[in-house]
Amino acid sequence: MGRWEPDARGRMTRAALELFAERGFEQTTACDIAERAGVTERTFFRHFADKREVLFDGSESLVRTAREAILAAPDLPPFDAALVGVVAATDLLEGHREHAAHRARIIEANPGLRERELLKIAALADLTTEALRTRGVAEPAAALAAHSAVAVFQVAFARWVAEEQRADLATCVAETAAALRALV
Amino acid sequence: MGRWEPDARGRMTRAALELFAERGFEQTTACDIAERAGVTERTFFRHFADKREVLFDGSESLVRTAREAILAAPDLPPFDAALVGVVAATDLLEGHREHAAHRARIIEANPGLRERELLKIAALADLTTEALRTRGVAEPAAALAAHSAVAVFQVAFARWVAEEQRADLATCVAETAAALRALV
Repeated sequence: MGRWEPDARGRMTRAALELFAERGFEQTTACDIAERAGVTERTFFRHFADKREVLFDGSESLVRTAREAILAAPDLPPFDAALVGVVAATDLLEGHREHAAHRARIIEANPGLRERELLKIAALADLTTEALRTRGVAEPAAALAAHSAVAVFQVAFARWVAEEQRADLATCVAETAAALRALV
Repeated sequence: MGRWEPDARGRMTRAALELFAERGFEQTTACDIAERAGVTERTFFRHFADKREVLFDGSESLVRTAREAILAAPDLPPFDAALVGVVAATDLLEGHREHAAHRARIIEANPGLRERELLKIAALADLTTEALRTRGVAEPAAALAAHSAVAVFQVAFARWVAEEQRADLATCVAETAAALRALV
């Protein structure tokens, strides 16, 4: 393995998803992933703390993107400002429907991974709440707008990964937000 | 320890909360809890699988109560039907503010407990969605109404345990639901 490893991280991520689907998450080792990706185990551990981390690699940048978008948004009612964050976060997933669907199936099948995913979603709600408070939104409006926007994200995301035809997550978010407004 | 143990379960729950607060969750053993409650360790394990379970003892009946209330509710719009579930569930907590606040602080301080709590909240959203579907509510309305009602529950609960003066969770839920309707 040379020092120069074009897209080693991407190769490891793809290899991990393949192996988790083929053998199950529990039965796959970091060593298996490294081998399939054509890198050393040492390279794997330079990029990821463990095999679980491969699945949550993008979560932090997703949450950070949402937060920054809310802070940079123009003057909007709280729920609309929270949605700006969700839309910015989903932009990062757009065009990767197959990967997202694949990942969602692996997580759904493993309670430990599901707990981790829920913790990431809770972090998205918490940071959205905080960003809204920074914009001067009072409680309970900040927490409610954040939780509602995250609910839109979760429902839109589930629809997006479930529908094979659908290429566009942004439309799914817009439709789901409209459905929520009609509902409440 | 005799066979007759009046409210042994309640004593163990109170002892566990006391000890978790005094020493921290990690530093407390099942044996410590049994000793403080005046029961044998064997009695502890007849009631609870482990010390974590003491904190989640009521979660399942809370979710079951919500589900049954939704299925038994009169004809209502989806979000209102979902709220019927939340109100029925919160009825079980009413009058136990201090215990709930105490428990919330312990869970907040421990990431493993927080993951577990989030899984229970996700179960509440999932079963609420399912109950709404059983009532004939289509998607995405069922999932959206469920997630929104659970968001109301989370925000109302957080306010209730944070406000020392507040005795009434039902009022808190009603106010929070009204705030959400105004917001969205």
